[in-house]
Amino acid sequence: MYFLLIIFWSVIVTDARRRHPTFYANKDLQYYWNETYANVTLDHFSYTNGQQFPLRFLYNLTYWKPGGPIFYYLGNEAPITTFASATGIMWDLAPLFNASIIFAEHRYYGQSYPWGINDTFRSIQNLGYLSSIQALGDFAELIPLVKNFMNCSQDTPVIVFGGSYGGMLAVWFRMKYPTITAGAWAASAPVLLFKNGGPSLGAYFNITSRTFLKSGCNETAIRAAFQAIDNYSTNSSGIATLNQIFKVNTSSPLTTKEDVENFLKPYIREAFESLAELDYPYPANFLAPLPKWPVREACKYLSKDSDSDFDRATHLFNAISVYYGNKTACVRSDKCPDAGFWADLAWSWQECTEIIIEKCALGPPNDFFWSYCNESTVLSMMKENCQKIFNNTGYNTTMLREDGVEK
Amino acid sequence: MYFLLIIFWSVIVTDARRRHPTFYANKDLQYYWNETYANVTLDHFSYTNGQQFPLRFLYNLTYWKPGGPIFYYLGNEAPITTFASATGIMWDLAPLFNASIIFAEHRYYGQSYPWGINDTFRSIQNLGYLSSIQALGDFAELIPLVKNFMNCSQDTPVIVFGGSYGGMLAVWFRMKYPTITAGAWAASAPVLLFKNGGPSLGAYFNITSRTFLKSGCNETAIRAAFQAIDNYSTNSSGIATLNQIFKVNTSSPLTTKEDVENFLKPYIREAFESLAELDYPYPANFLAPLPKWPVREACKYLSKDSDSDFDRATHLFNAISVYYGNKTACVRSDKCPDAGFWADLAWSWQECTEIIIEKCALGPPNDFFWSYCNESTVLSMMKENCQKIFNNTGYNTTMLREDGVEK
Repeated sequence: MYFLLIIFWSVIVTDARRRHPTFYANKDLQYYWNETYANVTLDHFSYTNGQQFPLRFLYNLTYWKPGGPIFYYLGNEAPITTFASATGIMWDLAPLFNASIIFAEHRYYGQSYPWGINDTFRSIQNLGYLSSIQALGDFAELIPLVKNFMNCSQDTPVIVFGGSYGGMLAVWFRMKYPTITAGAWAASAPVLLFKNGGPSLGAYFNITSRTFLKSGCNETAIRAAFQAIDNYSTNSSGIATLNQIFKVNTSSPLTTKEDVENFLKPYIREAFESLAELDYPYPANFLAPLPKWPVREACKYLSKDSDSDFDRATHLFNAISVYYGNKTACVRSDKCPDAGFWADLAWSWQECTEIIIEKCALGPPNDFFWSYCNESTVLSMMKENCQKIFNNTGYNTTMLREDGVEK
Repeated sequence: MYFLLIIFWSVIVTDARRRHPTFYANKDLQYYWNETYANVTLDHFSYTNGQQFPLRFLYNLTYWKPGGPIFYYLGNEAPITTFASATGIMWDLAPLFNASIIFAEHRYYGQSYPWGINDTFRSIQNLGYLSSIQALGDFAELIPLVKNFMNCSQDTPVIVFGGSYGGMLAVWFRMKYPTITAGAWAASAPVLLFKNGGPSLGAYFNITSRTFLKSGCNETAIRAAFQAIDNYSTNSSGIATLNQIFKVNTSSPLTTKEDVENFLKPYIREAFESLAELDYPYPANFLAPLPKWPVREACKYLSKDSDSDFDRATHLFNAISVYYGNKTACVRSDKCPDAGFWADLAWSWQECTEIIIEKCALGPPNDFFWSYCNESTVLSMMKENCQKIFNNTGYNTTMLREDGVEK
C-alpha cells in the first residue's frame, strides 16, 4: 500500500517548461522535476492493433550538459513521483556526470493507465497488457522519444536505474536491450527470489524477524501480542475491542473472526515486512514517512511483554503505526475512499501472473510469525486468492506462472 | 516459394507410434520421423485471452538413450518437414550423442495455423500473432511438453539447431532462454543483416553475382538475356513470346509490361538468389530438388551470348529451370491452384513487420542485375509493396520496423 507524497507545485519558470508543470519533492535537496507524456505502444509483441497510450515521464535537465549521459529510472509499482523523490543516488551522481535525469512511469501505475482508471481494471482484455515485459517495451520505445525531446544525439548513452522491482527491471532491460543501454544500476533487486532461484520458503520472514530482534524487540512480547489478537477474535466483543484498538475505519470494520484472519493479521504482518525493508539509517519518505531506523522505533513498543491482552494489542498497534502513521485500516478497500485501491490491484495483477514470489512465515524457530503456508500450500493459496480478487475480469489461475518472468 | 517434399508414408510399427504416423524423407539415410501436436499459447506476452493452438512437431527417438540430450530444431518459414529432411547435421550427430531428435514447426507455417488456413491470413487480428518472438515463446513452452511426452527428466539438456532464419531463431533462443538451452547450433544465420548490422545495401547481390561468374557464367550473356526480356516487354507479341518461353501458367499469364517488371523479372532474380544460396557441392532437396553445384548447372546455359533475343530468353529460362524445375510461373498466385500462396503470405508478413532486410541490386560494377532500389528508396518500396499485399487486413506501414527484431 502506498501513500501519496506531498508534492509542492512551483511557479513555472522558463519557456521550455511552460507546457510542463514543475514539482518539488524536496527543495533543500534540489529534487524537482517537470512532467510530461509520450505515446507508447500498448502491445509490443503482436500486431493485432496499433493502439498507443500516454506514458508519463519526469525530467530534470539542471545538471545536463550536451555529451553527458541520460540517467533513466525504470519505474516500478507506484506513481513514478514516489521513486523520483526516493532515488537519491541519481540526484547525487547527476552533477558529477553532467547527466540528465529521467524517471519513466510503469504502465498501469500513477498516471499511465492505457484506459481510464475504471476501465483499465475491469477485464483481462484491458488488464492483460500489464506485465514486466510490456513495461520494458515501453521503456525501450521511450528512449528515442526522450532523446528527441531533449534534442540530443541518438547516440547519447543511457544508464538505467531501478530499485526493488524497478531494480529487476533495470537488470532485465540491460540483458534484453544491450544495444540501447550503456549500463544498469540495480538496487535491492530480488532477481533470484523466484522459483528455483535459491532462497528458501522461510528466508524472507527469517530475516524480517532477525531485523526486529536485533533492534530491541522481544520475541515473547511479539508472540504474546499476536496471541492477544487471536484471543480477541473468538467473540464479538473482542472483535469490537480490536476495531477500537486498531482504529479500524468505521466504513469497513472487522466483523468476523475471518476478517481478523484475512485482513487484520496480514495487515499487521505487512507492517513488519515493510518496516524491515525500509529500515534506513536516516529519515526517509519512501512508501511512508519514516524516522531513521524505523524498526528500532517500532521495537520501543515491543521490548517486553505486558500484563493484559489489551496492553499487548495496544503496543502492537503503536508499533505498526510507525509504518501506517495516521492511515486507518479498511477491511474492504473498495468501501473506504482514498484507499489506493487501483494501485493495489495493478500490483496484485502482476503477483497473480508473473511476479510469483513464494514465501511463507513458518513460525518458530524460523521466525516469530504465525505459520500461514508451506511448500505444499503456498501456490494453491496464492491461486485461490488471485481467483477471488480477479474473478470478475475473466482471469483464471493458469495465468499464474511460477516461471512467468522467464518470458 | 517452396516445393512440397515427396514424403513416403510408412507402415505404423509400434504401439507408441500408432497414434502418430511415420514419415520417411530418405530411407537410405534413415531420415524418418513420427509427427504429433502439442497445444501452445497464442499470445505469450499478454493475458488478454488464454487461446491455445496445436503446434506440430516431429520426433525420432531411434538414437536416444536416457541421459542423452534433445536435439531440438527451431522451425523456420516453411513446413517443418522441409527442415527435417535437410538438416543432416542433426541426423549425423544424434547417434554419437545418444540424442533424441525433435523438429518443432514455426507458427503459421506447415500445419501449425492458429486458425483455419483461410481465416489465419484474413486480418491483423489473426495475423498479428505471427512474429519471431511469439515463435520463440512456442518453442520454449514446447520443451517441457516434449520432455513429458518422451517421459524423460525435465533436466534433460536441450541443444537448439537452426539454419537461415531458423539459425537466427536458435541464436535468439539461446540468448533469451539461457536457463533452458544448453547450447545452440546456428547455421547460415544472417543475424547481422539488419539495420546497422554491417553489410552494405549491395553486398548480397554482389556475392550472388560473383558466385555465378565464378561458376562459368558470362556477364555479357546474362545482361544481354535480361535486356532481351526488356525488349520483349515493350509490345504484346513480345509478351506473348515471354509467356511461351517461360511457360507461364495459362491461368494467370503475363499481360502487360508491368507484369514483366513486377512479376517476371523478380521471379527470374529470385532463381538467381536461391541458386546461389543453395549452391551445395552435393545433390540436395532443400526448397527444391537440385543437382550438386546447381549454379554451375545453370551457368551451362549462360556461358556465352547468343545471336537472338529468343535464344537469350530461352537460355535464361533453362538456367532458372535448374531451380524451378517443372513448376510453372503464375503471375497472380491466387489464380493458380497449388501455388503455395499462404506460405508465401506468412513470410511476407514477417518481412513486412520485423524481418526487415534492406538489400538492393545496384547494377554494374556491384552486380550484373538491373538496379531496382537504392538507399533512399529501399524502405519506401518495401512499405508500398507491403501495403499492397496486406491492404485488406488492417495492416499499415507503421508496423514495418527496421529495428523490429530487437524486441
